[in-house]
Amino acid sequence: MSNILLTGFAPFGGESTNPSWEAVKQLDGARIKGHRVHAREMSVVFGVANKELRKWIRELKPALVICVGQAGGRATMSLERVAINVDDARIPDNGGQQPIDEVIVADGPDAYFTSLPIKAMLRDMKAAGIPVAISQTAGTFVCNHVFYGLMHTIRTRKKMRGGFIHIPFSPEQAAQHADAPSLAIDTIVHGLRIGITTCLKTDKDVAIVGGAEH
Amino acid sequence: MSNILLTGFAPFGGESTNPSWEAVKQLDGARIKGHRVHAREMSVVFGVANKELRKWIRELKPALVICVGQAGGRATMSLERVAINVDDARIPDNGGQQPIDEVIVADGPDAYFTSLPIKAMLRDMKAAGIPVAISQTAGTFVCNHVFYGLMHTIRTRKKMRGGFIHIPFSPEQAAQHADAPSLAIDTIVHGLRIGITTCLKTDKDVAIVGGAEH
Amino acid sequence: MSNILLTGFAPFGGESTNPSWEAVKQLDGARIKGHRVHAREMSVVFGVANKELRKWIRELKPALVICVGQAGGRATMSLERVAINVDDARIPDNGGQQPIDEVIVADGPDAYFTSLPIKAMLRDMKAAGIPVAISQTAGTFVCNHVFYGLMHTIRTRKKMRGGFIHIPFSPEQAAQHADAPSLAIDTIVHGLRIGITTCLKTDKDVAIVGGAEH
Amino acid sequence: MSNILLTGFAPFGGESTNPSWEAVKQLDGARIKGHRVHAREMSVVFGVANKELRKWIRELKPALVICVGQAGGRATMSLERVAINVDDARIPDNGGQQPIDEVIVADGPDAYFTSLPIKAMLRDMKAAGIPVAISQTAGTFVCNHVFYGLMHTIRTRKKMRGGFIHIPFSPEQAAQHADAPSLAIDTIVHGLRIGITTCLKTDKDVAIVGGAEH
Repeated sequence: MSNILLTGFAPFGGESTNPSWEAVKQLDGARIKGHRVHAREMSVVFGVANKELRKWIRELKPALVICVGQAGGRATMSLERVAINVDDARIPDNGGQQPIDEVIVADGPDAYFTSLPIKAMLRDMKAAGIPVAISQTAGTFVCNHVFYGLMHTIRTRKKMRGGFIHIPFSPEQAAQHADAPSLAIDTIVHGLRIGITTCLKTDKDVAIVGGAEH
Repeated sequence: MSNILLTGFAPFGGESTNPSWEAVKQLDGARIKGHRVHAREMSVVFGVANKELRKWIRELKPALVICVGQAGGRATMSLERVAINVDDARIPDNGGQQPIDEVIVADGPDAYFTSLPIKAMLRDMKAAGIPVAISQTAGTFVCNHVFYGLMHTIRTRKKMRGGFIHIPFSPEQAAQHADAPSLAIDTIVHGLRIGITTCLKTDKDVAIVGGAEH
Repeated sequence: MSNILLTGFAPFGGESTNPSWEAVKQLDGARIKGHRVHAREMSVVFGVANKELRKWIRELKPALVICVGQAGGRATMSLERVAINVDDARIPDNGGQQPIDEVIVADGPDAYFTSLPIKAMLRDMKAAGIPVAISQTAGTFVCNHVFYGLMHTIRTRKKMRGGFIHIPFSPEQAAQHADAPSLAIDTIVHGLRIGITTCLKTDKDVAIVGGAEH
Repeated sequence: MSNILLTGFAPFGGESTNPSWEAVKQLDGARIKGHRVHAREMSVVFGVANKELRKWIRELKPALVICVGQAGGRATMSLERVAINVDDARIPDNGGQQPIDEVIVADGPDAYFTSLPIKAMLRDMKAAGIPVAISQTAGTFVCNHVFYGLMHTIRTRKKMRGGFIHIPFSPEQAAQHADAPSLAIDTIVHGLRIGITTCLKTDKDVAIVGGAEH
């Protein structure tokens, strides 16, 4: 049986929970289309997070890696299109680091596109009633850092696919913020399960609109 | 046993469901602190909606009336503070009417404040992890029309309290809109139950901030 | 020659300027359709602001009073429809007061509608290229307090009309906030001049859409 | 005297003007720090726009190229960080083309970073009272297409620097949209002049925060 690596993050930025870990841990051990899901909690620390990720990839040799992160303020699950080779931290990470305009991989390319079939995922998740969108930026904090690190790590492994999904605050978090959108953890878990299923049955992505004028 | 009247609306504006009815119907028949909840589905039609409301009030003689309506685009449950004496419809109602700047009650006052303890509800709902806010406007469409009609109807009945709660799209609706916030129906139902409980045990509202600079 | 009273506010909430005063002072002394504009700077202090307003109204006996206030975060000029009889301050005023859910006028009605022809103003300002909208709430801070105080003061003076206009940050203010919309002071001044002109030539407002579903 | 190429776009998406061309044409012929500005109006057509750009670059051999485009809905000038190698059009371009997930340059890298000192520009433009921000995505429409084409064209020309700036609607456009932010053309022109000046006097960018968590 092939493995799926699904990562969430520890809480950061003053929050006491992180909905990404709350969601992915519910899928730990799940079987989806003949694969087994392994959920892991990642540090919100530049550098450390990518070391953890590489270690889990070595151990599990997963066919599919999806990293999930909190995007407080966004209203929908967002399927990230591209990771860029820069760390630019508006706030310190959980280790107190705040890099500004530093490259993630010294000789790496400026960006990597996801290798997930995000348009097919968009279609299937919407059809299942999940609020979801394509996102053209994963930011420049630890989420983008890990997404770039993932795509760099698997760049030559043709049988390993990977990408990143941002998710909104949980309702409990949103209750502590003014006018913040949220999604229930159950909705996230349901969305992830559908998205993973789509990945496993889709070789070539579909061509449906998911772009933005700006 | 005293009655509680809880109303939701029929779908409107091109939607095939209305989360207000989806939510309140789940509470039909519920007992909360010795009261019985009666859920009713209201027409999204100026005039007709208020006739339905007055009929249900006559029949049930409720101690508490809460009307619930969909606010597509809002991120949280919103406890409405004030109803104003004007219909100004940006879109036609379900009967094809589109009144512009017409009074709801010819000799009525310009506005009525809610008689619900909305600050205590805010406090208790937040504490339960429900995304919720005070709202200073219920708009000028059928929701405000019904809210005003309710407060006018019960203005002299000192033992009858009433108010209005707006709720976001359901996730299923948000999946069909670009980047729309939503709340799960379960979260709404949970929030309503807490809000109702607070109403039933609160005589005098608490003084906590819920205002806006503009 | 009849008078027009045009008020702006002092800076508040940590700002060093207030675009409402920056704008209205440019119209001080202007003649518009045979009327003379008198611009005054008002304190951002509950109670004091309304005393200042009543004094200026006694002195000038204006045919038209328009109070203008900053609405940081809004994108357009907004023509306020209704003032409500409550102070609910999220932040302290410039005198350190922070009333919560207190009435403005003890025996006053719950609200007053503007007596300005806001739909005709909307039409004319839009036609002149001014970003403008009808607003259904002026908030619950000093702006609404003054708007309510104004409408209460002039409630029996049939020849005196009054209302409130909220305006965005100036560009210079927006430069200090993350992602805040703004309008140039020149655009505001142009918009105010057009709006005033419309008031002076309009007896009965027009019926065009300016409502909101919520 | 060295040349500066400054491009704006033709109107698109149902608009009758494009603020990018309205702004840049005002700088045509201007001298800034010993350089002459050449303003050009570009087609909103995939492929054609990049041909026009390459032709103007051949003719002018500019030391600096800044392409400017309309970002209707954004509130500030935005200094774009990165161009990505994909066309994904939500709406057709002015030639009726609507590519979905097509590469811009077949063997090009996934992305190029701007070579403008965007953080120094951010600092100087803010100091001058211009609402401005760093943006992590230029979208996937013709703006990003041209930005990518520009960076690909000048990738080996070490003395030629280039980048992209998105700008909000003009006030006149915003007046025709519901609740849209805008900036006056004068403010844009002022901001561009400052940004260009910063480019010409800055060799190495400064390290100030401009990132985003997501």
